[in-house]
Amino acid sequence: MKKVLLLGEALIDFLSEDYSESLSEVQNFIRHAGGSPANITANLLNLGEEAILITRIGDDPFGEYLKKTFTEKGIDTTYIQIDNEKNTSMVFVAKSKGNPKFFPFRSADYYIEKPKDMFQLLKESGFFHISSWSISHRPSRKTVFSIMDDIEGSDTKLCFDPNFRKILWEKDEDPMQTIKKVLKKTYLCKPSDDDAFHIFGRMHNEEYIKAFHKLGAENVILTIGKEGALVSNGHITVHQKSISQVVVDTTGAGDGFWSGVYCGLINDQDIFTAAKWGSAVAAFRLRTIGSDLPLPSMEVIKSEFLM
Amino acid sequence: MKKVLLLGEALIDFLSEDYSESLSEVQNFIRHAGGSPANITANLLNLGEEAILITRIGDDPFGEYLKKTFTEKGIDTTYIQIDNEKNTSMVFVAKSKGNPKFFPFRSADYYIEKPKDMFQLLKESGFFHISSWSISHRPSRKTVFSIMDDIEGSDTKLCFDPNFRKILWEKDEDPMQTIKKVLKKTYLCKPSDDDAFHIFGRMHNEEYIKAFHKLGAENVILTIGKEGALVSNGHITVHQKSISQVVVDTTGAGDGFWSGVYCGLINDQDIFTAAKWGSAVAAFRLRTIGSDLPLPSMEVIKSEFLM
Repeated sequence: MKKVLLLGEALIDFLSEDYSESLSEVQNFIRHAGGSPANITANLLNLGEEAILITRIGDDPFGEYLKKTFTEKGIDTTYIQIDNEKNTSMVFVAKSKGNPKFFPFRSADYYIEKPKDMFQLLKESGFFHISSWSISHRPSRKTVFSIMDDIEGSDTKLCFDPNFRKILWEKDEDPMQTIKKVLKKTYLCKPSDDDAFHIFGRMHNEEYIKAFHKLGAENVILTIGKEGALVSNGHITVHQKSISQVVVDTTGAGDGFWSGVYCGLINDQDIFTAAKWGSAVAAFRLRTIGSDLPLPSMEVIKSEFLM
Repeated sequence: MKKVLLLGEALIDFLSEDYSESLSEVQNFIRHAGGSPANITANLLNLGEEAILITRIGDDPFGEYLKKTFTEKGIDTTYIQIDNEKNTSMVFVAKSKGNPKFFPFRSADYYIEKPKDMFQLLKESGFFHISSWSISHRPSRKTVFSIMDDIEGSDTKLCFDPNFRKILWEKDEDPMQTIKKVLKKTYLCKPSDDDAFHIFGRMHNEEYIKAFHKLGAENVILTIGKEGALVSNGHITVHQKSISQVVVDTTGAGDGFWSGVYCGLINDQDIFTAAKWGSAVAAFRLRTIGSDLPLPSMEVIKSEFLM
């Protein structure tokens, strides 16, 4: 069975204890292990798949905590790079009943390097996952582009989470130029409607799908909140209704969706069935608070949500 | 009346909610406005003196919070520099019944620049205050050295808080070389016995005093916890017992001491009387929790503690 190889941020989420519309007014913060690629990696291991995380943390108390968390979750720490100069990246988030305000304090995750045994890693990997974070800034952007060159013509497929926000981006850089370069080689792109809005501005959902395809994405899954998802292979688009009955907390639902999709793809399902698996894992996350609870196996989730 | 001019870090202290011996195990943090030079500036204004703070913060929610706090405390924000690229510096602290564990995540405060009207500022300033923080890293170190050149031969006296900790220092740099360069021009140096230990290793208190004088400090006040302070003008050393009766919390006591000393010096007291004023302000801080409570005037503090 092939692995999923993920590259990107592992960081500390400092989440406000109380709801607030302004981060500058928050007094109490709670520390959480975060970073979407790290979360998806842990999910995939829970679900019964093999996954490898390439990330970079600092030689500081928060890096120490993250590494301990990875070990507890069974993540292979071979590719967890420790930076001796840069601190562990952090994100501060003000909980909100509307749009949560967040502010990134990134450092070590800008400096993710290409592992020496990349060739072997890619040979074992069916999918290579990146998000907007690692391409938002040099030198990690260069690392990603170099790996994109490595997978050119190979069996490893590039999957891209276009979770674009301007605030992440290196100043004086044109994000679209980089995003276009990535989409041109993307096998699967899974934006939320909010991500799509931040990239293309206000458009109809079908137009978002077309726009991602036009820039090169082979498959597009556009998640549209409680309406579910629009799934397109470039020929047909299927509206998949949400299978979630109970929504307690949306934290981790997006990462859950990705994890289910990878489970499906690794197990030779087509993009439509894979999206169903994704929707099932998301439904599991949506009915509990936070994303720390380990997932059961994909079999268990399927039997509960897809029968 | 001359002003006190202070240059250095203004930052966010993230203090653990609970006691812990390891920062990597702390889950809940409380945000405080911090940075010793910023605290001394606010103290001096409370005590009735004029003080100017030169610092640098980020264009982010924490910089916004600090600036709001400065305004509330009456600090002149003319010399509060806002960095568009670097984030507001932070320090994470695990409360401890022994030695609190702290870890700095510094950024904007490394980049403090020399104000354009430095010449005028110095003309109005009797004292120029720095600590180990601003000289621990380039380019702020260069800024300090340049101002030290400016005050050479002027009436402005250099005062140095040698709160040295290796963890603050730029890697591959020899801290002693820089500390020696500063001490050579120092009018007043106020180490704690712990600071002195971190600089010189284990020695007798009298030897610490001698060592600071030998490196050029004209006056030395060595604070020795509940034993009070040893005050030396290079000719005689006086042991000044602590005048504190009640110790509730040591937070802010050191900054309080500095503030009282400056009050004394600005009002033409000698170093021994100034140290008494310092001890009185420290005593005021020691009997309350934290350092957020505004100080009363120096007259009020003197009438309570020095009569």
